Amino acid sequence: MLFTIDRHLPHPVQNQLREQIIAGILNGQLTPGTKMPSSRKLADDLGISRATVMIVYDKLVEGDFLISVPRSGYRVGDVAATSGPKPPASHNERSAAFPVAWDRLIDTRIASQRNIVKPADWQEYPYPFVYGQPDASLFPLPAWRECSRQAMSRHAMRDWANDAVTADDPELVLQIRSKLLPRRGIYASEEEILITLGAQNGLYLIAAALMRPGVHVGIEDPGYPDARNIFEHCGATLHPLPVDEGGVMVSEIPNQAQILFVTPSHQYPTTVTLSPARRKALLAAASQNDQLIIEDDFESDTNYTGQPVPALKSEDRDGRVLYTGSLSKSMFPGLRLGYIVAPKPLIREMRALRRLMLRHAPSNNQRTTALFIAQGYHLAYIAKLHKAYGERWRKMAAGLEKYLPGMATAPSFGGTSFWVKGPEGTDCDTLAARALKEGIVLEPGAVHFMAPERGERYFRLGFSSIATERIDDGLKRLSTLLTG
Amino acid sequence: MLFTIDRHLPHPVQNQLREQIIAGILNGQLTPGTKMPSSRKLADDLGISRATVMIVYDKLVEGDFLISVPRSGYRVGDVAATSGPKPPASHNERSAAFPVAWDRLIDTRIASQRNIVKPADWQEYPYPFVYGQPDASLFPLPAWRECSRQAMSRHAMRDWANDAVTADDPELVLQIRSKLLPRRGIYASEEEILITLGAQNGLYLIAAALMRPGVHVGIEDPGYPDARNIFEHCGATLHPLPVDEGGVMVSEIPNQAQILFVTPSHQYPTTVTLSPARRKALLAAASQNDQLIIEDDFESDTNYTGQPVPALKSEDRDGRVLYTGSLSKSMFPGLRLGYIVAPKPLIREMRALRRLMLRHAPSNNQRTTALFIAQGYHLAYIAKLHKAYGERWRKMAAGLEKYLPGMATAPSFGGTSFWVKGPEGTDCDTLAARALKEGIVLEPGAVHFMAPERGERYFRLGFSSIATERIDDGLKRLSTLLTG
Repeated sequence: MLFTIDRHLPHPVQNQLREQIIAGILNGQLTPGTKMPSSRKLADDLGISRATVMIVYDKLVEGDFLISVPRSGYRVGDVAATSGPKPPASHNERSAAFPVAWDRLIDTRIASQRNIVKPADWQEYPYPFVYGQPDASLFPLPAWRECSRQAMSRHAMRDWANDAVTADDPELVLQIRSKLLPRRGIYASEEEILITLGAQNGLYLIAAALMRPGVHVGIEDPGYPDARNIFEHCGATLHPLPVDEGGVMVSEIPNQAQILFVTPSHQYPTTVTLSPARRKALLAAASQNDQLIIEDDFESDTNYTGQPVPALKSEDRDGRVLYTGSLSKSMFPGLRLGYIVAPKPLIREMRALRRLMLRHAPSNNQRTTALFIAQGYHLAYIAKLHKAYGERWRKMAAGLEKYLPGMATAPSFGGTSFWVKGPEGTDCDTLAARALKEGIVLEPGAVHFMAPERGERYFRLGFSSIATERIDDGLKRLSTLLTG
Repeated sequence: MLFTIDRHLPHPVQNQLREQIIAGILNGQLTPGTKMPSSRKLADDLGISRATVMIVYDKLVEGDFLISVPRSGYRVGDVAATSGPKPPASHNERSAAFPVAWDRLIDTRIASQRNIVKPADWQEYPYPFVYGQPDASLFPLPAWRECSRQAMSRHAMRDWANDAVTADDPELVLQIRSKLLPRRGIYASEEEILITLGAQNGLYLIAAALMRPGVHVGIEDPGYPDARNIFEHCGATLHPLPVDEGGVMVSEIPNQAQILFVTPSHQYPTTVTLSPARRKALLAAASQNDQLIIEDDFESDTNYTGQPVPALKSEDRDGRVLYTGSLSKSMFPGLRLGYIVAPKPLIREMRALRRLMLRHAPSNNQRTTALFIAQGYHLAYIAKLHKAYGERWRKMAAGLEKYLPGMATAPSFGGTSFWVKGPEGTDCDTLAARALKEGIVLEPGAVHFMAPERGERYFRLGFSSIATERIDDGLKRLSTLLTG
């Protein structure tokens, strides 16, 4: 008996049977011409319905895997035989010696950069205070399915099946221009927008276009480790921009920096919003020193207070602010979609660079997302996130006040995390390891600092993935670890 | 009257109405609390069914755009009000002078590289002999929809909603390892495989990891312009590897090249398959000179003769062949999925580099593709392409023999294009421009040569996008242009 069905798998019975029949054809157990068992017999043997077997057989006929022979049932087709070279019989053997000296050829500085690390199985812990991973149960899957279905029509496919080379989906660009950017106070033409593989790819493209050895870049410290790593990789010389309880300290910006990396709406990782006075001072200083500003607006849609904080880009009169936006937070991170808003000459260059690097973001996802925004599902989802995350935010604030008083930075307007400074003597790495044993996942803060020893007392608590009712208990347990 | 319905649009009536109501809410024409017209009245006014209006209203209630008030109908909700900052009233104004000297900041060498250019509207021409764009009508859209639906289950979403940081979907890696690579004679472990944003991204990652100023790279000439551009961008010094009717000329490979770029299965753009003797010689020479080989196996699944030509990688005993594969041809190019097979140390480094660049390919597409391969749809699609493209290939060969005798390189085993050398005096750019006026899209050959003047007589005719019954007529018209 070739086939087995396991009803405990999440995998539908139909798929299990289908995949096993195809595997049998591909590995040669079912040779062309072999007669398949009758649907009645196979259904009886496997304890599944005859209708299921018939559906599977019929679908396999569509794909030429089976042939339906009148009055004789189903036989195996020759699809595998006609579709390419046969695998050679033996596994390719290696020379005993490994002749290529990879350690000499590869510059391993990238692999040794400091990065944020989460336990791979963080979803299995009861108190996952991880950052940047959304609560998948809130995502409106039926709406996404519906948009996906629409994007997969024959008509729409004509637009997205092809290699677009350098172009972005005009429908998505339109939605970003008309629906997303105005909510940040930004008005941009099509030629000022580039779709990226997430905000990370946006930062990489900006860095690849503008940074090289000899270019000086100021970067918030503490700040976003990935930005630091990207800029270093491109050869820039980095200068720390100190951050206090008002955000980046404009008075401390070194004149020799040609480019500044900032997160004004919601400082990463301290969550502080830059005050209106400092925003003005930042723009004035950049204009004075002819500096470009990279604005990473990574959590623009997590303001639960209702008080608008427009993007710094909205006040940019000189075209010196390069804005990166992300759909990771307001769609889902695995989608890898983001965008850059910047002056035309730079967008043109980055588009050519993106062509070399990856051509364009997958067209089917671009179209599906465009429909999701156009039909209002995106806005409705943000409203839903606001309700859920706003509640968790208040629960976090109350819990921190109660169990870890005075340790957390005052939250500005929302976001999805708190930045906490442990008591004297805290070592965040030791703390994280001990917490994990208690089922608590938290993120050590040192990685955010250019000099890691300055960040030993800090850690971050994300709250987008932890269930609301677990927050209080998790913080209570954490306080025991910190103070007990 | 706010809303209009246009039945001539491909856009469903439901979506048209839904989008207009949401636009009205977002732009403030429909303020919170506004009473909506009754479904009966709106249906009458727009000449659509009342059921349609009710479905739209109900879906808008789900998204909090409308509120259903018992015995009073529907009112506008306050979703827009609760979901973020209001756009500022005025368009951001620019300073009169444009103060950033972009031309000084940007290295515009990328934007000025020579590239293959197709007319953007090539789909509108009657004889589109374009290359690399599939015939979308052959793609099994229902199967892709079905896999997409399965990948979008709540259960599966747990796997793909999150940022996977550096990981690939293990399901897709498994399918590539067990179903695709063995068909090329390649057996690789999980740690020897990296998923890329298409083969182009694979070449970029390899180049970014291994090439820098001072590295010498041999590249087929004529060859793939994108590879040439990527390698140049990374600072490598390029050496042409001449190509004759047997493929790349191994005897002419310069010793000082540390890396060689080749397309042995199906030379790009001449379509020649490298002979077994030359393959052996190539591997021996590379071993002798300690050279790495990049094998771009860009059209592995277009062999219509049934005679297997395994990948060069399958004979690689030293781990010096870096293999790039693509799903663009056997799925659709807009999907942007490909893979690299290479030794572990290099994969590890490129994974770190990919993390900086874009993290990973979109997870939903990875999972959908894994299901598409697992359930045999991919193999069935290739078999279908073989039938369709094999027929066009024979039609092309016959037509070229009849109308352009002696001009086309003898086709090796299939592919999706022919490489043609026009009569003495042919200038491919002039020819392409004249052909376009007759409704014929062809690709000038000069861009494939490092010295463009050497390629003036050449052009490429792709046949994946042109309908079979148009081929003969198209070639006849082309011959008039060439000889008349």
